[in-house]
Amino acid sequence: MFNRMAFIGIGLIGSSLARVVRRDGLAGEIAVAARRQETLDAATRLGLADQVTTDPADAARDADIVVICTPLGAYAAVAEAIAPALKPGAIVTDVGSVKGAAIAALKPHLPAGVHLVPGHPLAGTEHSGPDSGFAELFEGRWHLLTPEAGTDAAAVAKVTELWQRAGSKVEVMDPTHHDQVLAITSHLPHLIAYTIVDTATQLSTDLQEEVIEYSATGFRDFTRIAASDPVMWRDIFLTNREAVLEILGRFTEDLTAMQRMIRKGDGDGLEEVFTRTRAVRRSVIDAKQA
Amino acid sequence: MFNRMAFIGIGLIGSSLARVVRRDGLAGEIAVAARRQETLDAATRLGLADQVTTDPADAARDADIVVICTPLGAYAAVAEAIAPALKPGAIVTDVGSVKGAAIAALKPHLPAGVHLVPGHPLAGTEHSGPDSGFAELFEGRWHLLTPEAGTDAAAVAKVTELWQRAGSKVEVMDPTHHDQVLAITSHLPHLIAYTIVDTATQLSTDLQEEVIEYSATGFRDFTRIAASDPVMWRDIFLTNREAVLEILGRFTEDLTAMQRMIRKGDGDGLEEVFTRTRAVRRSVIDAKQA
Repeated sequence: MFNRMAFIGIGLIGSSLARVVRRDGLAGEIAVAARRQETLDAATRLGLADQVTTDPADAARDADIVVICTPLGAYAAVAEAIAPALKPGAIVTDVGSVKGAAIAALKPHLPAGVHLVPGHPLAGTEHSGPDSGFAELFEGRWHLLTPEAGTDAAAVAKVTELWQRAGSKVEVMDPTHHDQVLAITSHLPHLIAYTIVDTATQLSTDLQEEVIEYSATGFRDFTRIAASDPVMWRDIFLTNREAVLEILGRFTEDLTAMQRMIRKGDGDGLEEVFTRTRAVRRSVIDAKQA
Repeated sequence: MFNRMAFIGIGLIGSSLARVVRRDGLAGEIAVAARRQETLDAATRLGLADQVTTDPADAARDADIVVICTPLGAYAAVAEAIAPALKPGAIVTDVGSVKGAAIAALKPHLPAGVHLVPGHPLAGTEHSGPDSGFAELFEGRWHLLTPEAGTDAAAVAKVTELWQRAGSKVEVMDPTHHDQVLAITSHLPHLIAYTIVDTATQLSTDLQEEVIEYSATGFRDFTRIAASDPVMWRDIFLTNREAVLEILGRFTEDLTAMQRMIRKGDGDGLEEVFTRTRAVRRSVIDAKQA
């Protein structure tokens, strides 16, 4: 599909995609840029890179496609660095979780004739780094693309094909709408999981040990979510602030209503909510997302 | 171990224990009481009952051990019903999630010479009913016993052995302390999961469909928790009110602090929390509860 492919950043997502590219021979050569030598050594050891460099421009030079896989906070600097090295007709895509912010950080730096096709794979685990990747990560998962109107159709088709080869179901979406949907499905759940696990860290040592020992009753599931990459998630909350605060406001209202039902002993009200939410699980199972 | 064993209620937990009792031949006969004929028919069909009845007293009569597996809200009525039928020396145990309330509902009704050994298996799934049980449910899981000081040691030992045969690790705990620990590890996580899933049910139909379609990014895990039995959970929140409201207050404070960090763009503060919570996951894995 590509003569030369560049990865800027190669953690869980980037290394998983690179494994797919290697497995299916989708690129003649893979160049990898990362800040830390340790990451580059891992990429080499895993056989994912033909060229490694700490300079994003070196990796992007002559690439047919550049996949940005750094935390969102690094996007503007990456775009600025690679811009002079990009060849005309090159495709730039990314895997960041907030598309409005991704576009705002990348677009102003990219030269005319370079095709920006922002993307977001709805896949991941609580693990980070190139060693935690695997080629099957994207199978059956959604990949959302948020190109602006007027983006080169051939470039969008190429990025679509790349992710379909990885096993993803690809959908095109408006970036603002993407960020609202993800605020609900992903960002709020992570914020809440981080918060409840942090509440537990502030308990006395004895009680904290018991909470961990007896965590299999609900808390455990939150610790998995709250083990996700700290820098990546910091950047998500900083860049999708408005949508997250909006849905958090609704959640807080609903939580206050639940609190009142418990305080007042409103069993009928609680049972009604719990019966309604049970139906949502059925919908998730029916949508084959369980 | 027992000539005659009675189950009052036979849902996920009761039927799983009954499967263990059958598998290992731990009781000469099993009597099952349930309110609904459909449940009794299932118990018979699954080979878990030698006698079925809608009258708890009929099941409890002459039993060496009675295991109460109904929602907590039914405990007082069950205890009142079975009390006249209990033989001297009989053991009464239960599997309810709130031990203070369990004791308060059962103890006043039980005659002298009957041994109350309250218990709580930290095991379960989001499924309910006798068909969803399986004998391996308790393997490697904690079973917490909360007998009062002075309870017959032989009775406590028998209940301990029963759950050890099911594969549980048994621990004795003060009931009030149990209820505090579970408020954190189980009741608050469930309340939050129910709330966030309910927040999603109040979105517009279009958005709700997208939330379900793209739920694999965090929300999905909450829908599983929020699919737990509505009546059981209603009773948990009604009976463990004080401990739940206490920990909910702390959580709400912490969530407000997170909200403020997002609003102010305090990236260092967010990263610090997210790094701290990641370490908790490591502890859960080390405690072999992951």
